[in-house]
Amino acid sequence: MSLNNHKNRKADLALVLLSAGMDSAVCASVAAQEHALAFLHFQYGQKAAKKELECFYRLVDHFKPQKYLVVELTFFKIIGGSSLTSEEIEISESLNTQEIPSTYVPFRNGVFLSLAVAWAEVIGAEKIFIGVNEIDFSGYPDCRKEFIQAFNQAANLGTKPETKIMIETPLIHLSKKEIVELGIKLNTPFHLTWSCYRETEKACGRCDSCQIRLKAFKEAGIEDPIEYA
Amino acid sequence: MSLNNHKNRKADLALVLLSAGMDSAVCASVAAQEHALAFLHFQYGQKAAKKELECFYRLVDHFKPQKYLVVELTFFKIIGGSSLTSEEIEISESLNTQEIPSTYVPFRNGVFLSLAVAWAEVIGAEKIFIGVNEIDFSGYPDCRKEFIQAFNQAANLGTKPETKIMIETPLIHLSKKEIVELGIKLNTPFHLTWSCYRETEKACGRCDSCQIRLKAFKEAGIEDPIEYA
Repeated sequence: MSLNNHKNRKADLALVLLSAGMDSAVCASVAAQEHALAFLHFQYGQKAAKKELECFYRLVDHFKPQKYLVVELTFFKIIGGSSLTSEEIEISESLNTQEIPSTYVPFRNGVFLSLAVAWAEVIGAEKIFIGVNEIDFSGYPDCRKEFIQAFNQAANLGTKPETKIMIETPLIHLSKKEIVELGIKLNTPFHLTWSCYRETEKACGRCDSCQIRLKAFKEAGIEDPIEYA
Repeated sequence: MSLNNHKNRKADLALVLLSAGMDSAVCASVAAQEHALAFLHFQYGQKAAKKELECFYRLVDHFKPQKYLVVELTFFKIIGGSSLTSEEIEISESLNTQEIPSTYVPFRNGVFLSLAVAWAEVIGAEKIFIGVNEIDFSGYPDCRKEFIQAFNQAANLGTKPETKIMIETPLIHLSKKEIVELGIKLNTPFHLTWSCYRETEKACGRCDSCQIRLKAFKEAGIEDPIEYA
């Protein structure tokens, strides 16, 4: 009966955590189907920071979100503990699902989601999209559904009573192959994404992230449009 | 049977979120009874940032923590939404428990705790002390026990299996008067703390935080050792 019932659903704002990797780009495509977009990107001292930022702005040009924000976080580099942000730890090149890889950044999604919740509360976004995936994932504990659900509950208890936030994980149960297929269906601009953990001119093709991505495209029978060294 | 059983409990590291206000200082005194300390402080664009930082370093000199870290966060000032970080919103001077005050910073404790969990995981601290209080509190949703409990669960699900973190809230059920009394008992250096939301030379005595503090000392029958304008 209220005016809200009549407004275009596209007007509802969804915040998308956009690293500029393939998963977050597909996630943005999913969110764009029903929502106006707000993109949130983190520069946290990751080794591929510049490449990711370049791709982030290309994705901004492509998706034309209503709002976007790049957050500089020196914190992770200062505390260390990850090969992704520390010069002293080598990036791993062997996929081993028994162990948490050296690229794990301590509680990264907890930090990213908490900042996303804060921004969502200010801009009135009721959904936060995050491209986590627990099928062909890297073994990070903060990519699991049970973590996201627990965090979602904390987010609603720790914000104003009128703030209702739902964390959406449209890729959580998809295989990497299915993520590629979904992206193709939704016209995700894969050529504007960067998944490599390194910051070489072309993607290295050897780090865990490149290996997972290459395997996904291969299984989907689609050529990855980005260049590899 | 393991060596761990024989080590001095004092050697167990506890991370304390130390704003340098009276509550966090009492919290540090509680933590210091059984733990070695790691202090975490945030400069997040709060109006009293410099005063808080000055008091933080004085508290570092006093408590001599094993580690301490000051994190610069431009994020809250950029996203706005709080009178504590925005020049455009006036700090409120009337305590009204029916409404969330203008000084509420969106999901601040969620953000602070997520960064604390990340650092705790790297340095091996199994306890995080936070001086939240739900009795004489300012009406912030992220100061309530149920939020802390939900966040604690998310923290353990989102970190490595071997990381076990317990968020301790020793002041949660105390009145402000009882917090002052506990601090006196534990020799908390109240003269080194800053609670005022403003950054005047002396505490303003009028903002919500000053009013709550003054009332607490008055009820405890103890003179507040800091100066007021």
